[in-house]
Amino acid sequence: MRNFNEFTITDAVLDRLDGAKTARIREISAALVRHLHAFVREIEPTFEEWESGIDFLTRTGHLCDDKRQEFILLSDALGVSMLVDAINHRASDETTETTVLGPFFVQHAPEYALGADISSDVEGEPLLISGSVSDGHGKPLPGATVDIWHSDSDGYYDAQRPEAIDDLAMRGRFHADQSGRFWCWSIKPAAYPIPHDGPVGQMLDAQGRHPWRPAHVHFLITAPGYEKLVTHIFAADDRYLDSDVVFGVKDSLVREFRQSPAGKAMDGRELARPYFTLEHDFRLRQIRSETKRELSRKLAEL
Amino acid sequence: MRNFNEFTITDAVLDRLDGAKTARIREISAALVRHLHAFVREIEPTFEEWESGIDFLTRTGHLCDDKRQEFILLSDALGVSMLVDAINHRASDETTETTVLGPFFVQHAPEYALGADISSDVEGEPLLISGSVSDGHGKPLPGATVDIWHSDSDGYYDAQRPEAIDDLAMRGRFHADQSGRFWCWSIKPAAYPIPHDGPVGQMLDAQGRHPWRPAHVHFLITAPGYEKLVTHIFAADDRYLDSDVVFGVKDSLVREFRQSPAGKAMDGRELARPYFTLEHDFRLRQIRSETKRELSRKLAEL
Repeated sequence: MRNFNEFTITDAVLDRLDGAKTARIREISAALVRHLHAFVREIEPTFEEWESGIDFLTRTGHLCDDKRQEFILLSDALGVSMLVDAINHRASDETTETTVLGPFFVQHAPEYALGADISSDVEGEPLLISGSVSDGHGKPLPGATVDIWHSDSDGYYDAQRPEAIDDLAMRGRFHADQSGRFWCWSIKPAAYPIPHDGPVGQMLDAQGRHPWRPAHVHFLITAPGYEKLVTHIFAADDRYLDSDVVFGVKDSLVREFRQSPAGKAMDGRELARPYFTLEHDFRLRQIRSETKRELSRKLAEL
Repeated sequence: MRNFNEFTITDAVLDRLDGAKTARIREISAALVRHLHAFVREIEPTFEEWESGIDFLTRTGHLCDDKRQEFILLSDALGVSMLVDAINHRASDETTETTVLGPFFVQHAPEYALGADISSDVEGEPLLISGSVSDGHGKPLPGATVDIWHSDSDGYYDAQRPEAIDDLAMRGRFHADQSGRFWCWSIKPAAYPIPHDGPVGQMLDAQGRHPWRPAHVHFLITAPGYEKLVTHIFAADDRYLDSDVVFGVKDSLVREFRQSPAGKAMDGRELARPYFTLEHDFRLRQIRSETKRELSRKLAEL
C-alpha cells in the first residue's frame, strides 16, 4: 500500500485500524480520521496554515499546568464541552439542568460546616447561598455532598488572584442536613473573561468574539445512587447571559441574586451592611440501569 | 441566545463567527466547528472519554520542545500531513513527487562543498548520494540549494543519538554545480520507528499499528522561481515500504541503494571497504502565477 493521493489516503489510514485493541478504540480512531480529513479537504490548508495549526496546538499544550487547562478552555470556547454535556444528559425530566465544569474546579476543596463563610476574607458584597438537594420527585437527599466555587467581585478565581496564588478561597464542600438543605456565606461573584492571554484568547480575538462569561456560582452535587450533578446558577441581571463565551446558559439556571438591607439574615447572622441572597433547589437524577448506548458499547467490545 | 441542546449548539457557535477578522478565519473556524461537532456527535463520548482526549492533547503539547514535535508526529501518523501535501501538489507533470517533511528537519544545517562527507564520523556503511536538479523539462538548475538529512544505521537522527545530543550529523546543505549536479558521502540509513515513547506511540499501540518508517534519505531542494521540493528517496529493499506509519511512500521515490565493491568510487574517492550508491534526478516545478484556489481565497478576503 503506497502512492496515496488526496482521494485514497483516508481509506488507507482507516485500513490500518483493523487491529485496534478494542472496538471502541477503532470506532473513535476511525471517526477521528474521517472527520479530521473531511475538515482538511474542506479548508484545503496551505503548508503555512498547517504549520499555524501545529503551532497553535503546541502553544495550547505548553500553557497547560496544574493551575490552567487551556485545552478545556478551547473545548469550552468551541462549544464542544456543552455538546458533550448535552449528549450525556438527554433524558428530559424534572431534574436540574447541567452545564460545563469549567477549568477552575478543585478536587479537594476544604470541607465546611453548614453556614460557614467560604470567602476567606476576600473583599466583596456578602452573599448567602442556600438551597436544597432532592431527587427528581422532590424527596430530600440528606447528607448529599455539595461543592461550591465561584469568582470574586473582580471576576477572578482564587488561583487567578495574584496576591493569594496558593490559597483556596471562595470554594468549599458541604454536606446537606437531614432535610437535604445547605447554606453558606461568601461574596457576590462578578462576570469575567475566561483567561484570554493565550492561544484561546487569540482565537476568540481573531473570530471577533468577546471572552466573557456571565456571573455565576458553580455547584457539583453528589449523592449515592444519583448521577453527579455539575451545574452553575447564573445571575439574572448579567449582560452576558445571551453571549456566554462557552454557551453554558440555560433559563432554568438563571436566578436573581436578591439584595437585602442590613440586619439579621435568615440563618441568624447579623449583617452591618446590605447583602445578597441566592437560593436554588437542586434535583438529582437517579442512576438508571445501563443505558442502551452503554450496553451497545459493551456488546461491541466483546 | 441560550438553552442550547445537542441539536442547536453547532449553529449557535457558527453564529458567533460573523465578526471574524477575515473571511479565511471565518471559513476555517466554521469548518473546524462543524467537523469537530460532527465527530463528537458520531462517537458520543462519555465524560471520561472527553477527559482522556483533553489529557492526550495536553501530554502531546507537553512533549513538544526544540528537539521534538509530537503534534507533527500526530499529524503524520493520522495521514493528515500527507493529505495536506497531496492537496498542495495537485498538478500531475514530470516534476518529482513530494512527501512529508517530518519532524527532524533543521533550519540551518552546515553548508558543505560538493563531495564532502556529512556523516561526522558516525559509524555505518559508506553511501555516496548523488543526483541532479533540473526543471520539469530536464533543463539543469545550476546552484540549486540541496538540503540532505537522514538517520544512522540504527535508525536514529543526530538529535536522537544519546552520545552526540548537541552535534549535527548526517545532514548538510549543498549547492548544485554548473550542470545542476550534486554529490556527497554519508552512511547508509536504516528503517526506524518514529519516536513512540509518548502519546503518539500510545495511540499507535492502541490502534494495533507499528511505528516504523522504511529507510530513506530526506531532500529539500530550492531554486529561485521554482516551488520548494520536499521529498525522500526510499530504499527499494525495505520491508516497511507498504506499511510506512506516515503513509509517505510513492513508487517514483523508491530507489535501489546499490552495493559496490571496495575500490575507487565515481568521484575518485578510494574506498577500503564495500560501499553503497544512491542516485536520483530531481525535477522542480516552476512557480506558476497564482492558482485558482489562491485567487478565490484572495477574492474572498476583499
